[in-house]
Order: sequence, then structure tokens, then C-alpha cells
Amino acid sequence: MIAGVIGATGYAGAELVRLLSGHPEIDSLIPASVSFEGERIENLYPNFLGKVSAALVKPEDAAARADVVFAALPSGVGESYAKTALERGIPFIDLSADYRFDDDEGTFSAWYGKPYGVPELRRWSVYGLPELNRSRIRELAAGKKVIIGNPGCYPTGASLGAFPALARGLAGSGTVIVDSASGVTGGGREPVRSFHYPECADSTAPYKVSCHRHTPEISRNFAAMAAMAAGSPAPGPAVIFTPHLVPMNRGILSTIYIPLAESWRVKSAGTAVRPPSKAVEEKTGEIRELYRDFYRDEPFVRVLPAGLIAATGRVRLSNFCDISVHLDAGGSVLIVVSAIDNMVKGAAGQAVQNMNVIFGFDETSGLAAIPASF
Amino acid sequence: MIAGVIGATGYAGAELVRLLSGHPEIDSLIPASVSFEGERIENLYPNFLGKVSAALVKPEDAAARADVVFAALPSGVGESYAKTALERGIPFIDLSADYRFDDDEGTFSAWYGKPYGVPELRRWSVYGLPELNRSRIRELAAGKKVIIGNPGCYPTGASLGAFPALARGLAGSGTVIVDSASGVTGGGREPVRSFHYPECADSTAPYKVSCHRHTPEISRNFAAMAAMAAGSPAPGPAVIFTPHLVPMNRGILSTIYIPLAESWRVKSAGTAVRPPSKAVEEKTGEIRELYRDFYRDEPFVRVLPAGLIAATGRVRLSNFCDISVHLDAGGSVLIVVSAIDNMVKGAAGQAVQNMNVIFGFDETSGLAAIPASF
Amino acid sequence: MIAGVIGATGYAGAELVRLLSGHPEIDSLIPASVSFEGERIENLYPNFLGKVSAALVKPEDAAARADVVFAALPSGVGESYAKTALERGIPFIDLSADYRFDDDEGTFSAWYGKPYGVPELRRWSVYGLPELNRSRIRELAAGKKVIIGNPGCYPTGASLGAFPALARGLAGSGTVIVDSASGVTGGGREPVRSFHYPECADSTAPYKVSCHRHTPEISRNFAAMAAMAAGSPAPGPAVIFTPHLVPMNRGILSTIYIPLAESWRVKSAGTAVRPPSKAVEEKTGEIRELYRDFYRDEPFVRVLPAGLIAATGRVRLSNFCDISVHLDAGGSVLIVVSAIDNMVKGAAGQAVQNMNVIFGFDETSGLAAIPASF
Amino acid sequence: MIAGVIGATGYAGAELVRLLSGHPEIDSLIPASVSFEGERIENLYPNFLGKVSAALVKPEDAAARADVVFAALPSGVGESYAKTALERGIPFIDLSADYRFDDDEGTFSAWYGKPYGVPELRRWSVYGLPELNRSRIRELAAGKKVIIGNPGCYPTGASLGAFPALARGLAGSGTVIVDSASGVTGGGREPVRSFHYPECADSTAPYKVSCHRHTPEISRNFAAMAAMAAGSPAPGPAVIFTPHLVPMNRGILSTIYIPLAESWRVKSAGTAVRPPSKAVEEKTGEIRELYRDFYRDEPFVRVLPAGLIAATGRVRLSNFCDISVHLDAGGSVLIVVSAIDNMVKGAAGQAVQNMNVIFGFDETSGLAAIPASF
Repeated sequence: MIAGVIGATGYAGAELVRLLSGHPEIDSLIPASVSFEGERIENLYPNFLGKVSAALVKPEDAAARADVVFAALPSGVGESYAKTALERGIPFIDLSADYRFDDDEGTFSAWYGKPYGVPELRRWSVYGLPELNRSRIRELAAGKKVIIGNPGCYPTGASLGAFPALARGLAGSGTVIVDSASGVTGGGREPVRSFHYPECADSTAPYKVSCHRHTPEISRNFAAMAAMAAGSPAPGPAVIFTPHLVPMNRGILSTIYIPLAESWRVKSAGTAVRPPSKAVEEKTGEIRELYRDFYRDEPFVRVLPAGLIAATGRVRLSNFCDISVHLDAGGSVLIVVSAIDNMVKGAAGQAVQNMNVIFGFDETSGLAAIPASF
Repeated sequence: MIAGVIGATGYAGAELVRLLSGHPEIDSLIPASVSFEGERIENLYPNFLGKVSAALVKPEDAAARADVVFAALPSGVGESYAKTALERGIPFIDLSADYRFDDDEGTFSAWYGKPYGVPELRRWSVYGLPELNRSRIRELAAGKKVIIGNPGCYPTGASLGAFPALARGLAGSGTVIVDSASGVTGGGREPVRSFHYPECADSTAPYKVSCHRHTPEISRNFAAMAAMAAGSPAPGPAVIFTPHLVPMNRGILSTIYIPLAESWRVKSAGTAVRPPSKAVEEKTGEIRELYRDFYRDEPFVRVLPAGLIAATGRVRLSNFCDISVHLDAGGSVLIVVSAIDNMVKGAAGQAVQNMNVIFGFDETSGLAAIPASF
Repeated sequence: MIAGVIGATGYAGAELVRLLSGHPEIDSLIPASVSFEGERIENLYPNFLGKVSAALVKPEDAAARADVVFAALPSGVGESYAKTALERGIPFIDLSADYRFDDDEGTFSAWYGKPYGVPELRRWSVYGLPELNRSRIRELAAGKKVIIGNPGCYPTGASLGAFPALARGLAGSGTVIVDSASGVTGGGREPVRSFHYPECADSTAPYKVSCHRHTPEISRNFAAMAAMAAGSPAPGPAVIFTPHLVPMNRGILSTIYIPLAESWRVKSAGTAVRPPSKAVEEKTGEIRELYRDFYRDEPFVRVLPAGLIAATGRVRLSNFCDISVHLDAGGSVLIVVSAIDNMVKGAAGQAVQNMNVIFGFDETSGLAAIPASF
Repeated sequence: MIAGVIGATGYAGAELVRLLSGHPEIDSLIPASVSFEGERIENLYPNFLGKVSAALVKPEDAAARADVVFAALPSGVGESYAKTALERGIPFIDLSADYRFDDDEGTFSAWYGKPYGVPELRRWSVYGLPELNRSRIRELAAGKKVIIGNPGCYPTGASLGAFPALARGLAGSGTVIVDSASGVTGGGREPVRSFHYPECADSTAPYKVSCHRHTPEISRNFAAMAAMAAGSPAPGPAVIFTPHLVPMNRGILSTIYIPLAESWRVKSAGTAVRPPSKAVEEKTGEIRELYRDFYRDEPFVRVLPAGLIAATGRVRLSNFCDISVHLDAGGSVLIVVSAIDNMVKGAAGQAVQNMNVIFGFDETSGLAAIPASF
């Protein structure tokens, strides 16, 4: 099988190239690029030297020849390649925000500054969080017309962390706060001041407080999950999302605060002026079990045992999402911590997982790497 | 004037030595240590070579001879030195948790595992956050009996970030969430697995979720601030505190979520599915002005102008606390970001500031260093 | 096939576990440990959670049951397991220094503080740098008695960098200087002050100047290579080796200065007060070609094209050794830069490569991973 | 006294602003910039907020009004400001390469691509390494016409490390190798790919092997030092210089290999296949004493005692140059390690030191900061 990768020279594209090169079902790779057509990808990424030597082709050529097309482009520039893929009856897996919203409510336009060019493409698109939408992905794949809106990195970590709580009705009516930290690769390959080594080494800070584009994506996902609990469309909780930049290369850590529904709270729990009581610990154990059960059959979600807290270093270079479950001392707020590698489960790995679902491959195919220990 | 530093070989002690060595009112320094008595401090910290060559003495000798005594010891082991200082009528500035609580409610015992050895010392102690307790510090100093309970690093950043909102009645009845990130020096000088370079480089994770000892200190401070707004003792908001470890040397970043009182909320603001409205921006500006006004005379608090977000890298090696003010898109939660150098304003610098207040020195004396740019 | 890993809980052991878990010829793994017998390895390395769950057994059990045994132990403690393996006719691959020297000259004793316990084991041992000793490894393997003395991390990078120059007679009579830098994982898993995050972050320094144990190993390898050029045993060049510690997790960079033989020097080249002349560039190209030719059939050595300089970041998590070739402006000193991942080609990866050679597997089996881009 | 800083927005300029703001003899500061005229420097460097609020002026205005002018510009663009300063009889301290060479031999043109615009300015210029040229600096200052060619960062570390050996005749006839590592601030403030966080984090590599512009500067300095030993102009040793980039913010570490003159070698010393002998240790001690004696009166050079090796982390944010002295096991090559903060002793701090020499201030004035411990 031949995989095309449009936008192969950005960080997500390069990670796709790395993962697909080791995928047992992929026989060859067509990397494509608008800016670097004709160059060899190993010249741009000398780590690939001798292993990935293909010359970069025009994006349309990749779309015309591959059996599956991945696009790692900025939002709003790749719809024509999706159209070609649809017409050829091959899957199109898009890592931009172009297919994350159906946009009946204008959310995409409001955050990305322009409406879709070819809105009707969304008839065949699906938000590609396999844990949430696996059956819809398969359905579209069966019809030979499927476009994947591969999730954003932050929404992946946030959604997997909150999913069981929201879908099982643990959440009360309060605001859910998602406080996240990302490694610097999340900013992409272009050198800009914020990601200049001396500016971000040895410093931590939030950015785009209350105005990051991943906020509506998280909010929409939470609403879909809350609807599962309600049994009918529901507005979903209010969401606050604060991304931070920390001096590391890979990883997204999300600390998620979910106010519990009355029935899930610990009665007469305690307060912050005393360490958590036994009752709080027991309730935490109960919710942890619910999480484990919820994700029982998911190959890439690990709900950590008591005593362990999710850390980005432990999912490094893998497609895992690690989740740990905690309660505040008052027993009324669920604190979930999730960790992913932003470039793998948060981007290229999830795209490969979507391909595996579409083609009916083992879902871990090409993604079986154990996280590096250091 | 002679300054004694007990526990001079730990990280906070070494930072005290660095700062006091450059203090214009300090003529000489007596570093003391239980474990390294007789050794020269420059042998333990070769960065001091040729500049701080004094041999380490017994703690009791420092307490007996200095004009002001700093103690950077674990909690519960230094009360006898405080007693000596009190008897000699000289100030004792303690960086442990020993004097942060009066402990009428047993908070110290509950979190630190044992009651005070000499409880009556608290008659002359004060929680040394100058921005909160400057007049009480001066009062005790005037009576020649003063023990400073120097604040914890996290509580300093959290308290300065929330102070104006709580004391001016902006906060509503909801839970305040303090989500913080610390550099690794916060873990101290002893080599342990969690702070082993390969274990914490390139990784981010929370630790002690819901059970960090700084939680009751933050909660108590918040209650004191809320009481200012109420005009009478008040319980203060419920608090959730989650510390994270990030791969950097210095700095504490706190992102603080404060639900606003009804009257401070933005009516018909918006939601997370749309970027913040103009009304939200205006209210943010109004609150920012309130913060600026609140801290107008504080030499070490910088409320950042619109467009800037607090970052630990910008307060590096200084005693500043940088604060930026934000609102969620819904206009009902105040998001305050505060950044300090954990070893300076979060420990040794604040201790020196307390000394300056006690002796009536210019409060920035010995602390005038501009933050390093990188 | 069953692989035993003795000392599986150290960093090199854990890296062996990671690599062997993905090896297509290995059906199962028996991790063993003296200190943690009975524990599950995923409890010590939670990154392995759900992927490597085996309980750690006694080392002797691993030696008795496996089809190939790896040992990642300190020097001088594992000879009995090698004996068991020899008796059972299975390969023993040792990552300590125990089989790197035949020690007829007492080099091992002089540097490691004691003589071998069972010296006769060296009859069946070979220094496992496949690029140097592949045929001898195969020879011993054919006889069903083979112990691999897996090379040290620094000697691997230094030896591969100097090999073509020494074996082809480019080197003159002067001292060869090996100036190397290592990531912190090279120091192992035990927390000690030198590898405590705040002590080594944002700092660079040499250590063990002129007295690192890898010096005699490098020197011996250089002599073996020089003997190839001479066609008979030769003393080999004098060697100076200076290791440095730099704040990164993985990687060893070696900058190697080799004085050229008279016939290889650029006549009337120039000096440091002028940029390198065209003649110097041409000679550099000639030597680069010689290097390429020398390593033509090696699957893991990449001689970089003109314009690229070896960097540790580009071999990260791979078994590659990248080499770039340069000359000084005076045209009389060859400067070779080599980069390896210290935990892969410098330890566990090379051990797996040795296993592949022994069993006649494709030499890249289980080691085909492309270096991570970041 | 008023100090002008032209090019105040680059990294060296910002460091000058930081240091001069704390200098007791400087009453006010005029920061100047071509690109950012009119902007406030605290907007570009928010770490200066509230402490350095001056608006940036045109460079000519700074040159016309200040009592001393610092220029931190690229080479070849600031000669007119030097001319103004000369005419006004005020010192001009230039951090570019413009005044590091008298260029009678065309070295500057060969490396910097063009000849000097106003060559005659060199009549009043001096290479500002105070340890080497202090008396010449004073001489020119006395004449009220003085231009300082402030040394490059690498040449500062290399020259101070080699100075005693070369000037006292320890060096033999062989090539001196300077193998250096720099933090990323050395690359300046402009975001480029090489200094993009994900490209340089967790990686080490050399750059500009044999062709870095600091090579001729090091070579010229070494020749000047060798001439002191010879008692007459001497060619100086051949020099090889290899800079490396390591993932840290500040610091330059130089490991310098100096072949000893016959008379300084250890007779029957040993070889790399045995640990250094006692005779080698004794000779090392002898040379260390010579170094200590040589630098006895230098306020910023610390020759470390036996057992300590120079490390960049220990001179962080100070004007110190730490030096440790070693020998190879063969007793014929002196290995000197020097460490400086590239932005302080390697740039802005040395510039301030030059100002202190010119005006007869205490040489440590404004530079008394003890290195930060972490």
C-alpha cells in the first residue's frame, strides 16, 4: 500500500514519515510539499539520511497516486486534495482543523477567520478520535468515502481525560477547567521568537489564555460526551482551557478539574486545611475502577493504578494516553490528569491509528512501540 | 551588622548566602550547619570560591553571635535557635513551616506530623508575607521580639495572585483552583530519583495532587484575605491546589481560577465556543486596573499591562512577583497568572525583604537586581 | 526464542527490555535482577505499563532458562552467569567491562581494581564491536561458545570515528585526542549529586580528565586498528581522552583529532589566521570518500555528506553512528566527529546487534527504527 | 555618569543594560537602537519592566550625549559612532570584531568580508582583554582617546586558559587545540532554525569546524602570549579551534590541549593504558601553582584547587573565569579547562570591566555579583 503525506516537511509531517516508514502495511511513501518540491526529505531532516530518501513531490501528485493520503497542512489550504481523494475513493486523513467541525454553527469560521471553501466535503468527514467515533469512522470507510478530521493535540488529551466522567454522568453542572502544558514541538518547525531556545529554556508560562483555537474543539467534544450521559443532545459543561508552554520537546499534560454531580460527591469529606480523608480515597478508587472499565478495550489508553500520576515522560514516542484519577480533599471535584506525546497520540500517531481503523488493520499496527524510558 | 544563616548548605540557605553577601547593610555572615560544621561553604558550593570562604559553625554559635538569624532548616528542628534569638532580642527569620501557623486549629500537626515543641514562641511570630502583614511585622520588630514565619514558595505566588480579588470582594462563593508549576530546585539539594536529571528532563507531571503541605497555608491566606473583604473573620473559599514539576531550574508559575461574585461577572458574555467578546476584554481591563491600584506601592509586585502574560523566565533571580489578569470567555471566572523565582521571592529573597522591613531598611535593599534576560 | 536480561532495572537493562520487546525473533523475555527479584518491571519503569509486565527473577534462573543471555551489571559480579551460559551452549552478551580486555597485560585489573575471577572465560570472549570483529564473533558463535564483551559507550563512538583513518594508514605519529560529550543517562539510574537536575542543568563540564576507565579501551582499539595499517602488531597512537557531561538525556558526541601522516597532509595549506583553502576542502573530500568506502557495507554507520556535521540529536533512539570528516586549516590534522545514542549503539542496541550477528539474523533486526526527528 | 548603549536590543546589549543599571558609578543610561528607535526597552525585554523604562534613541544621539559609549552591533556598521566618541574625547567600547585586529595583515578583511571603513581609528584602539592589555588600556585612556575592541566570547575563555602556559614558556612546538562548547545565547536574539528550541534541545554538535571567525583572534592572542615567553615577536603555536553548541542558555567551556615543551614534560610518565602516575600528579600541582601565581592579582580569574574541574554552571551570571589545570597520563600535554559566562566575561561584563579600567574605578565595580548556585 502506498501512503501519501502532504506537508511532509513540517513537524507533524515528519513524524508521519517516521511512523509510516515502520508500518508493516505500508510498502512505500510519497512525501509531498508545496514549498520544497523536488528536494529530498533527508536533506531537510538529516536524521532520515539513508532511510527516507524520496524526493518531495507536488501535493496533487501524492493525492493522485497514493492509496491513502495524510495532510499535515495549515487550516484552509488543502480542501482540493481531499476532493481528489474522495473522487478516487481513497481515505483522506487531515491533521488541520478543516474537518474537526461540521460548522453548522459557524465555529470554524469564528476561530479560523474564514468559512470552509467546499463545505459539502463534511458530508463524508468524521472527527477522528477513535475512542469516541470508531464506529462512524468504520461506517464511512465502508462507503469508500471518508475524510478524517484528526483531532488537535490538546483536545485529544483533554477529551480522553474527561470522557468517562462526562459520558457516565459523573459531572455536575459546574465549569470544567482544562489546564494544560505542552512541549515546544507543538509550536511547529518555523523559528519564531517564542520558541527560540534562550526565550523558552528554563521558563514556564501560559499563552493565549481564554483564546486558544482548541477551546471550541474541547467544548464540542465535552458536549458530545455529556449527551451520552443525558441520552439526548445536551449543551455540555462550560469549559475554560489554559495552555502553557514548558521547556521540553514532546508531550502534553492536562490537569482537568470536573465538578462532580451531587450523587458522586463524598459526603462530609473534609477541606483543604486537612489531608484527604479515607472516604475521599475510597471514592477515588471507585472512580478509577469506572475509568478502567470504561477504557477496558482501548489499546492506547492506560488508566494508571493508585499511587501513580500521569507524566509526559512515560508516554514519550508512543501512542499511549496515560490517565490518573484524583479527587480534591473536599470530595466534590474530580481531578483527572492525562498525558500524551503531542506528536504521536496528539497528531501523527492518532492519524495512523485512524488509518488502521479505516482499513481494518490491527489498531496498534505500526504503533506498537513501547514508550522510551528516557 | 552580622547575619547568621543556619542551614546554609541547603539550596535556600545557599541562596540566602548569595543575597546577603551583596546586601549593603550586612557586614559579615556566619553560615552554620549541623551536618557540615567546620567545612568551608565554598567547598560545598564552589561557585562561592574566593567570595564566601567562611567556615560553617554550629547553629547555636550563629544564634548566639549574629544580629539577625535566618534559619533554612526542615520543619520542627530549629525552635531552640528561635528561643535563643528571642532572648537576645534579635530577629529570627525562619524559612520552614514552623511559624506559618498559629496552629490553634491543629493544622500544623495534621500536615507536619507532630505538634510544636515550644508553642508559646508563636506569641511573637508573624507570617512573613510583607504585602499582607507588613504592619504586624513592624509592630513586633518595635517590641524587639520578632519571629518571621517565612512563607512557602507556592503560597507566596498563589497568595499574591489572589490577594486583590479576595480582599476587594471580587470572588464569589465557588472553589478557587491554584494550578502551579515549579522548577526542580524546589525539591532541594538532596539527590533523589524524582529529581535525577534523566527522570525529570523532558517531562512534566503533577505530584502530591490534593495532598501537598502548602494547601492549608494557601487556604489560610485566602481566608485572611476574604475576611478583609467581608470586614470580619470569614471562612474563605474552598481551595484546590495542584503542584506540577517542570524541567527548569528556578521559578514557580501559578494559574489561579477565581469564580467571580455575581456583581463582577460580565453579563451576556459568551462561551468557550466563541473567542472572548469585547465586553470580556473591557472587564478584564477594569480588574487589571484594580490590581494595579491595589499593588501601587508594592516594590516587588508587577501587574503586567494588557498583552503580557506572566512567565517565570522574566523574574529569574529577582524578588519580583509578576501578575497578569485574565477572564474566561464566559466572563465569570477570573484567571490570574503569577510568576516568581521560587528561590528568591519564594524563599531567600522574601526572607531578606522581611529583614529589611524589620530593621527599617529600604525594602529593596540587597534585592535591587534586575531579572536576568536569559 | 527466549532472551534473558540480567540487571534489567538499570538504564542499560531497561533499554534492552525496550529493544528486545520489539525484536521479531524474540518470543519472550525473562528480566532478572538481584535487588528487585519478585517485583514487576513495569512498577519500576511505569512507561512499560501493560507492555512489559513480567516479574523479575533471580539472575541464575534467567541464565538457566533463556536461549540468549544479556547482562547489564557492574563490572566483576556476573562471571558465574557467563559460566552457566557457556556450559549450556548459549550466547552471553555482557555490557560491563568484564570481557573487553583479555588482560594479559593487566589493564582490567589496573583500572577496575581487581583481577578477573574466572580468567579462562576469555578463551571464548570477543570484544563486540561488530564493525571491527564481526568475523571473530561468527567464528565463536559457530562453536556454540561465545561471550560478547559489549563495548563501552565512549569507545564505540571514538573507535568508529577513528577506524578508517587508523586502519588505512592516514594517521601519523602524533597523539590522538578524543574530546567527548555525553548525555546524563550515561551516569545510570542511581540518584547522585552530579546528576541531580539542578546541578547539571544549564551547565557543561569535563569529568575524570585523563583518568576515565574508557581510556585504555579506546587506546587498545586504536592499536588494533593501527596494526591493520601496519600489517603487524603495532603500539598504536598515544591517546588523550576527555569526557564531558552536557545537559541532555541521550547521546555521545566525540570530536577526534588525528594528526595525519606526512603523505596525507595538504602541502602549503594555510594557517588558522585564514579560512581553510580550497586545497584543504579537496583533501577533506578525498578522505570523506575513503570513509564512505570503508563503511560501504555497514548498516549502522552513516558517513555524512559535505556540509553536514554529526549531531547527537539526529541519531536519537537509533543504532546509527553518524560520522562527519573535517580537516584543520593547516591541513595536517584530521578532525572526525562521531555521534551515537549512548543507550543504543553505545549499549543496548549494540548488544542486540551482536545477538543478530551471532544468530545470523538480519543485522538490523529489531534495530530498524529511524531516528526520532525531535 | 551617563552610559550610552548602542545596539541595546540584542542579547549582549540587553546584558549591558542589566549590568550598567546596577553599576554604582552610572547615574543614567541611554539605550539606542537602529531598528527600534522610539520603543521602550522594557517592551522588548519585559523582564526590565518598571526598572529600565527609557525609550530607545538613535545611535548618534547616544554617541553625542553619553560620557562613555558601548556598542553591541554587528561588525562593520558602527565606525561613525566611534569617530564621534573619539572626537568628543570619550571612551568607545565596541563588542563587535571591528577593533580586535589592527589588520596590518588583512585578517579582519579575510574573515569578515570587507576592509575597515576608517582604518585610522585603530591608532587609538586596543584589544580589551584587561588581563593581557591593562596597561595599554590605561595609557590610551590617559590620552582621552580610547577605543576598546572587546574580545570575542570564545577567545576570552581560550586566551585566559592558555595565557600562563604560553607566556611562561611551558608550551612546546606542537599544535594547540581549543575544543569549546557554548550555550545558545551565543547565537543571539534572532530566531533561526539552529537555535529553534526543538532543534537544539537534547542535542550536542560542533559547528563551523575549522572556519569559525574566532579562530584568528585566538591565534593572534596566543602569538602575543608566546612572544612574552620568547622575549621577542614570535609566530605562536598553530591553533585548531572547534566550537560546539550545547543545550544550555549561558556559558562557554573550553578544553585546551597544549603540548608541553620538553623541559616541562614528565619523564617516564606512563600511557593511556594505565591511570596517571604520581609523577604526573605532582607535575600537575606544580603547573597549577604557576597558574595561581600568574593570576594572583587578577580579580576575575579563579584557578581551581586540585580536585575541582571548571564548569560553566559555577560562573553563571558572574564575570569570573574559572580555570582548572590537568595533564594527560603521558605527562606531555597540558590540558586546561576554562569556564566563563559567555554573556558576562565573554561580552557585557568584560566591557564593563574595561570601562572600570579606563576610568580608574575599582575593577570589580558593578561586577561584584557572586555566581548563582543554580
